[in-house]
Amino acid sequence: MSADLLIEEVHFRRDWINPYFLGRKSLLVNLSDLAAMGARPYACLLSLGLPVSLLGEYFEKFIIGFLEECDRFEIPLMGGDLSRSEKVVVSVSVVGYLASKGPLYRSGAKGGDSIILIGDVGVSELGLRLIRQRSSKCMSEIADLPSLESWADGPDSYRWLLAHFLPEIHLEAAMWLQEHELANSMIDVSDGLGCDLLHILEESKCSAEIRVEDIPVPPGADRITPASRELILDGGEDYALLFTCSQEQLERLKQSYPPAFSPYRVIGRIVSGEAELRLVSDSGSEVYHRKGFDHFS
Amino acid sequence: MSADLLIEEVHFRRDWINPYFLGRKSLLVNLSDLAAMGARPYACLLSLGLPVSLLGEYFEKFIIGFLEECDRFEIPLMGGDLSRSEKVVVSVSVVGYLASKGPLYRSGAKGGDSIILIGDVGVSELGLRLIRQRSSKCMSEIADLPSLESWADGPDSYRWLLAHFLPEIHLEAAMWLQEHELANSMIDVSDGLGCDLLHILEESKCSAEIRVEDIPVPPGADRITPASRELILDGGEDYALLFTCSQEQLERLKQSYPPAFSPYRVIGRIVSGEAELRLVSDSGSEVYHRKGFDHFS
Repeated sequence: MSADLLIEEVHFRRDWINPYFLGRKSLLVNLSDLAAMGARPYACLLSLGLPVSLLGEYFEKFIIGFLEECDRFEIPLMGGDLSRSEKVVVSVSVVGYLASKGPLYRSGAKGGDSIILIGDVGVSELGLRLIRQRSSKCMSEIADLPSLESWADGPDSYRWLLAHFLPEIHLEAAMWLQEHELANSMIDVSDGLGCDLLHILEESKCSAEIRVEDIPVPPGADRITPASRELILDGGEDYALLFTCSQEQLERLKQSYPPAFSPYRVIGRIVSGEAELRLVSDSGSEVYHRKGFDHFS
Repeated sequence: MSADLLIEEVHFRRDWINPYFLGRKSLLVNLSDLAAMGARPYACLLSLGLPVSLLGEYFEKFIIGFLEECDRFEIPLMGGDLSRSEKVVVSVSVVGYLASKGPLYRSGAKGGDSIILIGDVGVSELGLRLIRQRSSKCMSEIADLPSLESWADGPDSYRWLLAHFLPEIHLEAAMWLQEHELANSMIDVSDGLGCDLLHILEESKCSAEIRVEDIPVPPGADRITPASRELILDGGEDYALLFTCSQEQLERLKQSYPPAFSPYRVIGRIVSGEAELRLVSDSGSEVYHRKGFDHFS
């Protein structure tokens, strides 16, 4: 079971995202939480708080988007609540199950494990920056992919916006890893790669080294510059999958990883020691300091 | 599965309820939704939105209250979310299960059914009126039952306040009715007796007559006056249980109803016809018009 709260002006701005995309994204980010445990989604609940003025078209578009993702993943919306609220409040709960074996936790990483990434990081952040840069009110009017593509004016920026509005979640890959016992620990990257890897390290009581050069940079971003380094380490909301596995598991993974899934990349390894993340590159190494999103900062 | 959203200034006022009582009540009202279906609670999720200034003591008291009720009903808190928010937002989800047979719905009432009430109505509303009347800021400081009792200055008003802060939910009675197949339809009275009975009538496509004299008035309230009539028909948040059953079921109920449960009262009957509620008394009869709480009015 998992729940996520999305609040206007904390998690999103109403003039920066159309309710149709917000509806779709609201379910996706919750399914990503289930994916992080290797669970198969079973059902969901949706509670919405809305200003009275948004009860018509806004509400309808949100629900259309939300139910589209329910259909795609074959998850029934089992109930929920609707209330008046000054700001838009979206509260989604999801329930999943495990066909066999226990769930994957953040706490299972072991010294010697490889650290593996499935999916992109930093791409959603580029989408957000683009929207912020243009600070375009008409963004909230864009409610379908063709309009989004033409607003984007280029394939790279279109990919950034897609990553921001409709993040690709790696549910099938996550369930496959759980079923085949190919991960010791797992998390979805919602706050940022550095920050979420630290969550694994803290709960597993171990240390890690990653090679920044082995993390792919977003399309259209520069090669390894300080700016793109920050982007891939601290950019949030990509919902990539981050997990650790032993060398034996990694061998089995290499032999059987389904080509239909997004490619995996070994980006580092777990070592014993304090919960600390060391960034290694050809030019030397340094300790990573958390910059991930803090809702209360 | 069921979910409820409680939003500051829509569902509660921060200066009128201590976070400890709010935490307890938040779980109770959700369990009442499960009770309405005859389901046994299994687990819950809690998402909280809080202003930064309330992250300390307020948050702690809320959680203490919430977990106290989790303990009492033996339901684990399985997860949730915490976010910054301008107003306090409480979003609770609960999951229950049925040992056998299907759940009870609002849509199962049949012509000839008796309408039965378990628990009080109008009492919570009297508690709310007392708080509003005294509009006492110190109300939010009252965080335990002895302080509440001494603030109440009388056994009746203490009962009103208890009903408002810690409604008695009829979970065991509801599960018993479901297990023994002694109800055709059921609902919990959260918006008001009249309004919630209309929900049954609308979903069951039938009509009802109730005898207002057969509904108990709250302790300390006058006998049947227009004011107390409105109180018992429109007072919300008592979480009484309202159900319908056939004459055969009623006979079995009379013979086997456990004395440990709150007493049941037959207050009327279902008849065929449009979804309409008729109030019958010695002096005549009239059609009831909905006055229940509308979050968007």
